[in-house]
Formats: sequence, C-alpha cells, structure tokens
Amino acid sequence: MKLTLTPQILRLIDSALDEDRVGSDYTTLATVPSSVKASARIVARQDLCMAGLSIVQSLFRRFDPSVRFEVRYRDGEWVRAGETIISIGGMAHALLLVERTALNFLGRLCGVATRSRVWSGELRQAWKELPESERSPHSPRLVDTRKTIPGWRELDKYAVLAGGAGNHRHDLAAGILIKDNHLLAAGGVPKAIHAARERAPHSLRLQVEVTTLAELGEAITAKAEAVLLDNMDDATLTTAVVRCREAGVLSEISGGVTREALPRLAAIGSDLISCGALTHSAPNADVALDFDRKAEK
Amino acid sequence: MKLTLTPQILRLIDSALDEDRVGSDYTTLATVPSSVKASARIVARQDLCMAGLSIVQSLFRRFDPSVRFEVRYRDGEWVRAGETIISIGGMAHALLLVERTALNFLGRLCGVATRSRVWSGELRQAWKELPESERSPHSPRLVDTRKTIPGWRELDKYAVLAGGAGNHRHDLAAGILIKDNHLLAAGGVPKAIHAARERAPHSLRLQVEVTTLAELGEAITAKAEAVLLDNMDDATLTTAVVRCREAGVLSEISGGVTREALPRLAAIGSDLISCGALTHSAPNADVALDFDRKAEK
Amino acid sequence: MKLTLTPQILRLIDSALDEDRVGSDYTTLATVPSSVKASARIVARQDLCMAGLSIVQSLFRRFDPSVRFEVRYRDGEWVRAGETIISIGGMAHALLLVERTALNFLGRLCGVATRSRVWSGELRQAWKELPESERSPHSPRLVDTRKTIPGWRELDKYAVLAGGAGNHRHDLAAGILIKDNHLLAAGGVPKAIHAARERAPHSLRLQVEVTTLAELGEAITAKAEAVLLDNMDDATLTTAVVRCREAGVLSEISGGVTREALPRLAAIGSDLISCGALTHSAPNADVALDFDRKAEK
Amino acid sequence: MKLTLTPQILRLIDSALDEDRVGSDYTTLATVPSSVKASARIVARQDLCMAGLSIVQSLFRRFDPSVRFEVRYRDGEWVRAGETIISIGGMAHALLLVERTALNFLGRLCGVATRSRVWSGELRQAWKELPESERSPHSPRLVDTRKTIPGWRELDKYAVLAGGAGNHRHDLAAGILIKDNHLLAAGGVPKAIHAARERAPHSLRLQVEVTTLAELGEAITAKAEAVLLDNMDDATLTTAVVRCREAGVLSEISGGVTREALPRLAAIGSDLISCGALTHSAPNADVALDFDRKAEK
Amino acid sequence: MKLTLTPQILRLIDSALDEDRVGSDYTTLATVPSSVKASARIVARQDLCMAGLSIVQSLFRRFDPSVRFEVRYRDGEWVRAGETIISIGGMAHALLLVERTALNFLGRLCGVATRSRVWSGELRQAWKELPESERSPHSPRLVDTRKTIPGWRELDKYAVLAGGAGNHRHDLAAGILIKDNHLLAAGGVPKAIHAARERAPHSLRLQVEVTTLAELGEAITAKAEAVLLDNMDDATLTTAVVRCREAGVLSEISGGVTREALPRLAAIGSDLISCGALTHSAPNADVALDFDRKAEK
Amino acid sequence: MKLTLTPQILRLIDSALDEDRVGSDYTTLATVPSSVKASARIVARQDLCMAGLSIVQSLFRRFDPSVRFEVRYRDGEWVRAGETIISIGGMAHALLLVERTALNFLGRLCGVATRSRVWSGELRQAWKELPESERSPHSPRLVDTRKTIPGWRELDKYAVLAGGAGNHRHDLAAGILIKDNHLLAAGGVPKAIHAARERAPHSLRLQVEVTTLAELGEAITAKAEAVLLDNMDDATLTTAVVRCREAGVLSEISGGVTREALPRLAAIGSDLISCGALTHSAPNADVALDFDRKAEK
Repeated sequence: MKLTLTPQILRLIDSALDEDRVGSDYTTLATVPSSVKASARIVARQDLCMAGLSIVQSLFRRFDPSVRFEVRYRDGEWVRAGETIISIGGMAHALLLVERTALNFLGRLCGVATRSRVWSGELRQAWKELPESERSPHSPRLVDTRKTIPGWRELDKYAVLAGGAGNHRHDLAAGILIKDNHLLAAGGVPKAIHAARERAPHSLRLQVEVTTLAELGEAITAKAEAVLLDNMDDATLTTAVVRCREAGVLSEISGGVTREALPRLAAIGSDLISCGALTHSAPNADVALDFDRKAEK
Repeated sequence: MKLTLTPQILRLIDSALDEDRVGSDYTTLATVPSSVKASARIVARQDLCMAGLSIVQSLFRRFDPSVRFEVRYRDGEWVRAGETIISIGGMAHALLLVERTALNFLGRLCGVATRSRVWSGELRQAWKELPESERSPHSPRLVDTRKTIPGWRELDKYAVLAGGAGNHRHDLAAGILIKDNHLLAAGGVPKAIHAARERAPHSLRLQVEVTTLAELGEAITAKAEAVLLDNMDDATLTTAVVRCREAGVLSEISGGVTREALPRLAAIGSDLISCGALTHSAPNADVALDFDRKAEK
Repeated sequence: MKLTLTPQILRLIDSALDEDRVGSDYTTLATVPSSVKASARIVARQDLCMAGLSIVQSLFRRFDPSVRFEVRYRDGEWVRAGETIISIGGMAHALLLVERTALNFLGRLCGVATRSRVWSGELRQAWKELPESERSPHSPRLVDTRKTIPGWRELDKYAVLAGGAGNHRHDLAAGILIKDNHLLAAGGVPKAIHAARERAPHSLRLQVEVTTLAELGEAITAKAEAVLLDNMDDATLTTAVVRCREAGVLSEISGGVTREALPRLAAIGSDLISCGALTHSAPNADVALDFDRKAEK
Repeated sequence: MKLTLTPQILRLIDSALDEDRVGSDYTTLATVPSSVKASARIVARQDLCMAGLSIVQSLFRRFDPSVRFEVRYRDGEWVRAGETIISIGGMAHALLLVERTALNFLGRLCGVATRSRVWSGELRQAWKELPESERSPHSPRLVDTRKTIPGWRELDKYAVLAGGAGNHRHDLAAGILIKDNHLLAAGGVPKAIHAARERAPHSLRLQVEVTTLAELGEAITAKAEAVLLDNMDDATLTTAVVRCREAGVLSEISGGVTREALPRLAAIGSDLISCGALTHSAPNADVALDFDRKAEK
Repeated sequence: MKLTLTPQILRLIDSALDEDRVGSDYTTLATVPSSVKASARIVARQDLCMAGLSIVQSLFRRFDPSVRFEVRYRDGEWVRAGETIISIGGMAHALLLVERTALNFLGRLCGVATRSRVWSGELRQAWKELPESERSPHSPRLVDTRKTIPGWRELDKYAVLAGGAGNHRHDLAAGILIKDNHLLAAGGVPKAIHAARERAPHSLRLQVEVTTLAELGEAITAKAEAVLLDNMDDATLTTAVVRCREAGVLSEISGGVTREALPRLAAIGSDLISCGALTHSAPNADVALDFDRKAEK
Repeated sequence: MKLTLTPQILRLIDSALDEDRVGSDYTTLATVPSSVKASARIVARQDLCMAGLSIVQSLFRRFDPSVRFEVRYRDGEWVRAGETIISIGGMAHALLLVERTALNFLGRLCGVATRSRVWSGELRQAWKELPESERSPHSPRLVDTRKTIPGWRELDKYAVLAGGAGNHRHDLAAGILIKDNHLLAAGGVPKAIHAARERAPHSLRLQVEVTTLAELGEAITAKAEAVLLDNMDDATLTTAVVRCREAGVLSEISGGVTREALPRLAAIGSDLISCGALTHSAPNADVALDFDRKAEK
C-alpha cells in the first residue's frame, strides 16, 4: 500500500513542522556545522505493522532533496522488533530537524496499523476456530469508526487499511447512518428510511441504528440495507444477526468493542464489527531513529 | 484553566470539520427538518479530568450562534463517571453536524489530561510515602515530551497542564537539549556546551543528555544547567541524581517511563521525570453526547 | 434549505474577496465618504430559483456587522423576474466593496439551482404525461455528476439540491463506481465487483458502468447494486432498464444528457438520469444590486 | 501563452483535490493494483480553443513525478473535434485519481477561451464587413468584466486572453470606474472625477459610467479618460461614441451584450464592448480522457 | 480613514499570533490568575501620525470579546508625544498575550504614516515657498513604490495614504510600467508602447521609464500617458518636466529620493515624486502599552 | 549560514507573490515574448551583510526550474558596494515577475543583518578599547527583541544571527520574562518567581525585569537566573551589573538602546544589551537587479 499525499495531509505535515519550530533548532544550529553529513536508521523497538513510509520520506527530502533512502519495509508489512525499517543518509541538519516530527507521524501510524492488524487477526482466528456448523459463512469484518483524532481522518483510516482491517464510512457525506436522534426527529424508522431514500445520493447504502428487535423488524420491513445493532446483549445480538442474514440485510455490531470481546463477538457472526478503539486509543508504536556512530565529513 | 484558541488551533478545528464533510451530512439533511431544536448533554462515561471546554463551545456556537450552554465542569476539574459535563440547547442540525467532531476533540484532550492527572498523582503519592530521610526535598515533577500527535502540540501540552503534570520544552526553539548526535558532531560535551552558550538565546537553559557518570562529570564541569539521564540503571541513576543535587544541576530521568515504574523512580528523587506516554499513547476518555428524548418543536 | 458555511466554503469566500482586492477599491475610497449609509435591493432580472442567501448575508455582514436585511426569498424558492430577493441597509462602503463578489456567488448558485429546477420539472412532467401503462413506477430522478467547477463542489451540489434535483456521489470516497478502466485493470466485471466488495466501506453502494447487455448481465450476476448505462441506444437502454428492474438493480442513464433529450429519456424509465450540464454549463442567473436613490446621511 | 501557476491558483488546485477526496478513491484502490501503468489521451469532443495545459500537467505530475506527456496543442491554439490534445503515460492510480479534476479545470478554461475566441472573431468579422466609410478606425475590442466565478478571477481572465479577447480591469485596485452610486455619494460627475484624481494612483485610467448624453458631456468636460455607456439605445450610443472619439475619450459599451448583438454593436464602433457572459455563463468545452485499451504491466 | 480587514490582512494577523506563540505564554500563565482584569493605555512616545486602529482593536477583541476601548485618535490624525491613543479595559491575560503583537503592528504602521506625513508636508511647504512664477501649477505629489515589506503591501500602502502621501500602482496588475528591460525585449519605446496598448486592460495608464531626453521624445511621440524620469541630473529633469507638461504627459521623478532632496525636487515641478524609503526604510514609531497601576479584581 | 525554508516562511513568500499579482504582470506579458531568455546580476549598492540567499533562489526557481545561479556571497558574508552577489540566467518572464519580490526580501534581510553586524562590531570594539582593568570579562552581547515586523519573526531573528548579533527569546513560549505587570498581578518579585518556577518548563531561564536596586536585591534573593535592568541611569546600572556578576545572575540592559549609546553601555559591562532597533527600524539595504544588456534569444 502507498499513502497518497493529498493537500490536506501536506497541510498537516506543514502544521507539524511549524509547531516544532524546525527552523529555529538552536541546539543543532549551535553545535553541528551545517556541512556535516550523517546516516541513520529508523528502527522498530517492538513488533509492528508498518505504515507511513511516504510521509517519512517526504519529511527528510524536504530539507535535503538529495537524501538517500534504503527502504526495508513498506506499508502493510510486519516488522519484528529490532529490525531496521529504513536507512537514511544525508545532511545532519536535515536529519536532526525532522527526526522528532518523522517519528511522531510514524509512531502513530504504525500504532494504529499494528492494533488493526493484531485485532483483526485475532477476530479471524477466533472465527476459524469455531465449529463450522456454528459459525457464519464469513468471518465478521473488523472496521473503524469516525472516532479519529481531529485532523487525522485520512491518516487514521489509511493506517487501519494498512493493518488489514476495514473502513466504515469516511465522513458524513460518505454513508447514510440513521441514529436514534434522527429517528426521533423523523418520526420513526419507516419515515426516516423513506426520507433518506428520497433525498440522499443513491451511491450510499442506507443503514439504521436499532436497539431492539422490534426496531430491527421495522428496519427490515422498510428495506434498510444495513443495520447497526447497538448495545444489545449477546442473545439478542444472535437473534438479530440471524434475522438480518435471512433478510439480506448487513448487520454491524457496535459499542464499546474491546480486544477481549472479539472471540465472543466472532461467534455471533455479524457481517461487521466496528471498533472506535482502533483509532481513538491505539498506543503509538515504538520507533526510534539511531544515528550511525561515525558522522561523515 | 482556559485554552486560548490560537490561529493554529482554529485551523485544526477547520481541518476537522472539513474532513468530516459537515456541510454534506445527508442523513441529517434528509431526516431532520432544519427548524427543529434539541437539547443534549455531554456525559462522562468514565472518571476523567476535564479539558477542552472552549473548543467544544466554539464548535457548537459556530453553526448556531444562539446555542445555550450550562457548564458544570471546567478544564482541570475531575469528573465522575455518569456526570454531565455540559448541557447544550440549540438547533438540532447544528448539534448533529458537530457532535462527532466535538467528542473527538474532547475525548482526546480529556484522555491526555486524565492520564497526566492520575500518573502525576501516583508519583507524588509514592514520594510522600517514602521515609522522609530517604526522599528528595521535593517530589519529582512528571513532565511531557515532544512526542505529541502531529498537529496537536499546543493541545497535547495544554491537556498535560490541565491534568496537573508539567511541560518540557514546547518546541525546538524553546530549550537547548544537547543529545548524543550533537555531542558527536560538536566533539564532546565541553565543546558542545561552549558552542551552545555562545549562540543560543540566554532565555534558554542548557541541558545535556548523558548516559554515563563520566559524561555527567563532564557536563557538570562544563556548567550544564540540567542533564537528561538516559537509560541508566537504578544504581547509576541514584548516584547521578545525588551528584546533580550537589552541583546545583537539574536532573531529569527519561526513557520508556511507564506507570508501573513511577514508584521506583520516585525513590530515586530526580528533579524531573519525562514521559512520552502521557501524550503519544494516552487512550481517549469515554465521553458521549446524549440527546434529551423530547425534541423541541 | 440553508447552506452550511463550512471552512472550505469560507476559504472560497476569502479567496473571492482577495482576488477582487476589496480593501483597495480606490474608486469608492476616493468618491464616497466612509460615514455614508445606503440601502439597496438585490433584484432578480429573470425568473430564477433562489440559492445562496447565507453567503450573501455573510459577505455584507463581514464589513458591516450591523447591516440590516429584509429577506423575501429563501433558498429553494422560485423568484419571478423583477422581484426583490433581499433588501440591505448599511454602510455604503461595505455595500460597494462586496457588491460584485456577492452577485458573482449568487448568480452562479441561482444559475445552477434554476437549471436544476427547470430540467427536473420538465423530466417529471414528461413522465407524468406518459400513459400509465407505459411508464415506470416512479419518475426517473435527475442527478448531478462530479463535473463541477473546481473549488465549487460543495456549492454546486448544494445548488442542485436547492433546485430540487438530486446528488450523485459527492466525491471519490462517497461511492463505488467501477468504470471501464477499472474493469480493464481488474480483469472483468465479476473480479472487479468482488475486489470492491472486499475492500470498500460497506456504507457505499456498488455501481458498475456497463456499455453492453452482456456486461449488464455480468454485473447483475455478480450482484452489482447499481449500474450506469453508458452511451446505449434507446432500444438497448429500454431492455437494460427492464432487466435492472427485474433484478432489483438501480439503473442510471448517463452521457451527454441534454434538455431536449429529457422527454425521450423519461419514457425509458430508468431510476436515475445523471447530467453534467446541471453544473458544468449552467448559465448564471441574472441578478443585480440596485441602490436606493437617496443615500442616507 | 502559458499560465503562471501563482500561489492563489495552486491553492485552488489543492482545494479541488481535497473536495474530490483523491486520497480515498475506494474504487481505484480496490480494483487497480498500485503497480499498474497506463496511457491515455485527452481528446477534444468539440472544436475548442485550448487553455489550461500547465494545470493539467501539474495535476498528473503531482501524483506521478515521472509521468510522460506528448503535448499536441498549447494554450491559445484551436483544436478540432476528435483531436488529441495531450497524451499521458504513467501510473494508472495517478491517472485515475486526477482524471476528473483535470477535466473539470480543462473543460471550464477551454469553455471560456472558446467563447472568447468565437465571439471576438465574429465581432471583428462583422466590423470588417462594414463599408469602410461607415466603420470606426479599429474594430471594437471585446473585453471581459469582473463577473467571474468566485475563486476563478485569475483563471477566467487568463482564459479570455488565451481566446484572444481582452481584459477589463482585473480587480477593484486595478482601475477607476465611477458608477452611479459613486456619483450619487460624491455629488455628481465633476466632483467625483475630481475626487478620484486627487486620491487614486496615477497608474489607473479614470472611467465614468454615464447613462445619458448630458452625463457624457459632463464627463468629457471633467476630463474623464474613458466612459462606460450603459444601457443606451443604438441611436444614443452612436452619438455618444462619436462625441467620445472627438474628445479623445475611450468609449465602452456595456450591459447585457449577447452574441446576437455583436454585429449590431460592431457598427456603432465604440472602442470597447464588455461582456460578462464571456466568463459567467460560458458552457464548458467537452473534453474527455480516453485510456488506451492495453494497460501496461 | 479606516482600514478594511481583508482576508489577506487577517491571515497576516494570524501569522503574527502564531509566531509569538500567544497560547503558550508561560510567564503570564504562571504569574497572573486568569480572572484578573486590567486596564491600560497605548501611548505615543513620539509625535506620530496614527494608523492601524482597527488591527489593534481586533487583536484585543479576539481574546476578550467584551474588552472596552476609549479611542482618542483615529487613523490619519496627528498625535503628540505623551498622548494616549487608546485606552483598553479587559482581561489581563488577553492584554498581556496580545500586547507585543499589537505594538509591533502599530509601531510599523504609524512609522510609515508618520514619515509619509512629514515628508509630503515638507515637499508641499517647499513648493509653496517657491516664487509663484517659478513653480509648477500644483505641488508635486509624493507617492510610494512597490518596495514594501513582503506580506505588507496592503498595510504599507494604507499607511502611506493615512499619512497623506499617495499610492503608485498597487501591484503588477494595477498599472503598466515599461522599464528598460521591457524596452530591450520589445525592441524600443514605440514598439513597446504599441504592444502594451494592444494587450493591456484599458483601465491602466501606460507609463514608460526613460533615461534620456531622446527616449522621452520617443515616448511622447508614441503617446505614452506618463513617464518615469530615472536618474537624470537636475537640468535634464527640468527640461524633461517642461516637455511633459507641454505634451500633456504625466511626469514622475524616481530614484534614491531622500528627505534632503525634496526641496530641490519641489522646484523642478514634476507631477509625481516616488520614494521607496516611505515604506522600505521607515523607522517604527515609538508606541508603548502602559498598564494602570491598580489591577482590577 | 543557511536559512531553513519552513512552512511559515513559504506561506509568507506565497503571500508576497499573491500581493504583487505576479501572474497578471500585463507589462511583461504585453512587451516580452515568453520564449526570451535573459541574464542578470543582483548587485549591492552599498556595503552590506548578506542574508536571504535561499529565499532569492527559491523565488526564481519557482517560475523557472532550470534557472542557473552563480553565487558569489553567502549569508553572513560582507559585501562591498558595487559587488555582484549572485548572477542569474533564465527565462526573462520569470526574472521580471519575481524581481521586485526578491529584492524586497533581500533588501530587508540584508538591512537587518547589516545593522546587526555594524552595531555589534562597534560594541565589541568599544569594549576592546577599554582599559583591561576597567572592563567586564567579556564584551556585552548585543541581542534582538520580539519587536519584529509581524509575520517576519523567523526571518528577522535569522538576519540578526546572520549579522553576528544574538537572539533574545524567540517567542512567548521560549523564555520566562517577568515584567512589571506580572509582578503587580502576582504580588511582588518573590511570589512571581516562585509561581513561574512551579509551572513553567524547566527548559526556560527565569528572567525578571527590575527598575530599582531594591527590586534587583529581591530578584537575586529569590534566585532569578537573569534580570532585565530597565531604564536605569548609568550609575545605577553600574552598581546593578556588579551585583549581578557577584550573584552569578545574567544582566541585561534594555530600553531605547541607540547606536550612539553603545560605547557608553560597553563600559558598564552587562552580559547582554537588547535592542529593538535592530529589527523594528533597520533601513533596507540597497540592492538592485541589473539585466545584462544583451537579451538571449
């Protein structure tokens, strides 16, 4: 996979460089002659799923257009603790100015990708280990939510994909999701679905949040294409998922999904499980930039 | 405490609204008449330290200038799970458009503030529980690092302060921190310190990273004002901290500081303990926006 | 309807003010004392569908916060030639600086809304006039495309809605539309559909462009949810639309749709007809700002 | 001619890429492997005047720096329907992401240029066909107005030049144009002209809008350098133009100028004819991007 | 006079607040409780011409919307050393955060306005003191150039106007000024003038730079509307100015104009004297913000 | 030295190009064919200290990527009047569009650098000429202030360094400077120092402004690390500086420092002398761009 550096991402990069005052790094300006060259390696300090290569490269290239890279791992690949991800050779000033910004991007992107990789892997594994007779035709798909760090929507969703999990709707314009507040204002499930069908782009699936089997019934009758099963107990979820499958409606389980819950949810067999913690609470992956001992002259 | 909405933060807010396409929320446009009013509460779903009130208010005010707030908790205050943080009354469209963006800001800011509050409290408590004869004159101060989410430097550092922990240097222009790579290029500790003193603003303290007691000795001799003790074992740290105190040099312990390590580090008694995990890996606090059942006409 | 002034739209407004150098209007500065007040009316010089009220108001308010408006028509309403849309009273300088920018926004927005209103009305009328036995259950829905003026996506799509036509996908993230080039790279219709289903968000409908009945068959078999019938002759279109209806697949007619073609296409009875000319070639509506003769002192 | 990519134009390009979410094109990401190469041609589907080459090139280059172009037509050249304007070879992803944005820019720029070329050509031709004794020394010059699409001032005015018509003042700082509202506030033509001469930069010509021959007389007496003859009937226009020529004052005819009116206006023989429809209502030119059938591996 | 806060100026203000890190003023945050109120006065420490009131007000209002002002002097007015320009009452934090930024804007704007006022006054006075028989009909007008601080074009030119001097062309689009390099490329004065007349907007006067009387003759013959007399000795200037007056061509003296030279140049009697030092080298005016001793509670 | 082109500086460059309308230079477009090449030299018209090379190069490269430079002087080097700083060869259009913007940047940057070089040299020289027994161990260091042109903080501070003077704190986050207003709100020197030490980052030195010897005593007792001696007479200053030296506290003289005062202040022997006039009132250096007579074809 390869991240597209859109204008919005480039503005975020600019913002990161500005906030760290990279042009006024007094320590480096005072102690390192501007002609010194250096080489360094970005190293994984833990097992991780790589994500963010093109941002890292663009950061170093920006202040040293002739910087050289030796890329060992690309986005989506698994890196073992201790491995070098990329080697970098160039002007010492450029490396020092950008070091922290590059690691901050990489640490977060790999953090989200790694959690996505591990959790989606565990979900699939749990499903596989179910007796074939008791499991759904496909493993549920683990997807993200819109609970991303403000300013990071594109990057967080990219990292989820790099980790092998899936994206839920990208933004408010990229899906219809009728929640309880909409239902209240619209006057119930059938009216809300009808209104949405009338006005929303046909390119969007129509999904409704339901909290009871009765509401689920209404949604199916009104031809919802997907439902979000919110905060139901396991028995209700199981019934709901079966009804959805029979009606050809996509089922999504949502609400406080934790790593520990994944095996249990795998057994329920919904089409989708959405999980905010993939993005809003993924710990950074531990990555470091180690300079080679011998500075080039 | 009160966050200053600087231009940089306002641009981040704009970026968050843009990335969620708040102007094209087809679900809301299709199902909720634009004249409907609503009231809602932002509720803590866990114990948390509040941070981010002014961002939340500015978000709702932006699309409904006459929105009314009832503020229960201000930045820096502790909120118990289940408590309402703020009540909001205004146009339903405005509330729905901004809901997720507001919660994403609040969840992260409170997440960082909460970890800062809890961890710094535990550090102080561990220090207090030491026999007076064995403890340093003051509790070590827990401070953040520059390991913040790109684009979030100001917000992350603000949340750390709101939580009651301290800030390390804000950016590259706001402190001198001579690391091993600088030492290498400058030709050792004395030369690096001399060079920095010559050229850096006098408003900045001069701190040097040392990894051995020998380097520490050099730093003290060369009149460093602070040292960063990197990756030393506890015995070495203890010796180093004592020497710093004798020499009137600030001592900072750094490197992979975890919650579990805090009591142990409290006993060593350095002036400062810096911890990247306050910002780079704080899980979001769980906050939600609950609409009041009865939509106003 | 009411336009949400998103950050992106506000940036476009800024750009429009910058490009007209509103701060250096030498004519006004030289000839009109800064204390003079004035009142004016924005008048429709042709029949038109109103769109853009909130932009107009924000422009005048910006340079005269105490400006007064008397709004006669809101977005989506039909205005007869000669009618006053809005009356404005405030500082003469503010009115003069912003006049052209306001009219340029309004002229284009009303232009797109008016064409959308007229063309979608004619389509519906043509469908109504068909013998009931020969017509489709619903009138085809006239929708826009992504052929909008660069920088104007949100505004153009809003104006189409204000005019009563519908939106196709908002952007590349808001719909799956597999075209011939994707088919080529993916290795045919079934493979492409399978790949898209695997990786794309479930919030998006899966639409495929087909040019022959054979491809249509493949798409139906592979469970496409919508098809885009591109450049087929009327007989083929008629057959294709029937097959789609039988298979429960949405049908969209696309390609060079003109006003003249609408009655003919109404008879074919597809679910959707998409038309780039709604946005890319709508002539501006003729609106003017007339100052009241008597300048207030 | 060659368009200069100013910062303002680059921001518009960024805005266009952002609004189309080019980084999240799920269709392409799901169906086309990122290593696939492709070649394509941008083709004129109608006769048109070319404008916008450098924008198109910069768009493709942005996401594939090694893209190759074979340019057949440059800005200002006339292209026959069916001709290839430019051939492009590069990464399929880059081509697909940018395709619509590139065509949207090109379609509008060529649309404005084409109308400018055709209409100014017809005006000149009509003038040429007049008996030499009855025609003015030079053909009137067809010029644009400030009625451009907001955000597009630079591009619209460039396209007019590319088409061979002329520019009126670029913005409020780039010309003095005293209109009726200024006259009202200033207390009549002589006072307004005097005030403008006192305060405005000498680099700007002083033009006054007049609606009667009496006002024209005042303007000439007060040494206006140009007049805008607004909404006069043909007889009055003819008289006015003659008086202007005698007085050495530039004459401009303005107000609702249509294609049909050009021959009639040519006969009146003013120096300038300004026409908002060149920019505010030019239909897009029909251009398409055709992929070559055989995708490269 | 009143400055219009255009988007470009607002961005400059944002940039100034960002670069001073107003959200992280550790001194104020640590020593001043956020509830403290204060009052202060901006005081002139030298005689000066006021310019920049609206920027100062917008800065304080931004961080304290309820701040109160008592305005004593408006833009364009002369302030004696020691006088209070404006009194301000509001939150102490807001006052302290913005103090330096406000003074930096004000100091520069008043600096440029003051020099413009003084120098243009001295020029007029010198002209007045000439024997009527030896002086030109009007005093030459002192005007600025495009030698402004990058990012400050609008502000610098506004301050010049506030000081009572005049503006030369605002930017490259707001005037035709054919210099020696253009002449070289165009093939001489007549060809250059012809080419410019053909293509440039008629709203712009056509000015040519000449360095000899021969070139001046060519320019007059080719009907230049203004000339820039560059680096001529006084005798040549005197001859040139007379010829211009006879030909009805505006004459501008330019090149290294100093305060000392103004009386001498007044005697030559050109229409215009342009002077880069009004903007590029005006020393800041000395303004200070004095807090009232008694902080309000 | 070499300036780092940070995002903030790049935005300033964009702003400068926008404000000069470089894309609509009608003079050049009309008179110079776009294929003409030219060569030119930037020449010092006075003795100056060079600063700003990388901005100049980036400006020309932007509109002509293949432009060639021959660099004679780099930032920080002294250039004699008449010397060529850099030779440039490329497209005539690019040179003409950017000429004024490049000179405006260069003129200001060299102006600040030159004043910094000259004044700091004179200070050092005056110190050297003192009898050794009467002078301080080191020459006072001349430093700038935050009195920079809004938008130019980074550039102004860089130019000061290029000239060989020093930087005071970069911004509000990069130093603690407790002034009289803070003292007032905090309740005196000891309380203010205590509060700052509690909350401000340890990376910042703690400096206090004092106006009397009594306050100085308080500051020393409370362990201030630096003091700013504001508006004291010479005798008081001399006493204060001695006390500071004895206490190991840095002393800074501030307030209306002029070139004439430097020798007198040198004799007082403080550690630092801060001077706003280095940045807020430095006259531009006189630089020009001379085209070589023979335009290349």
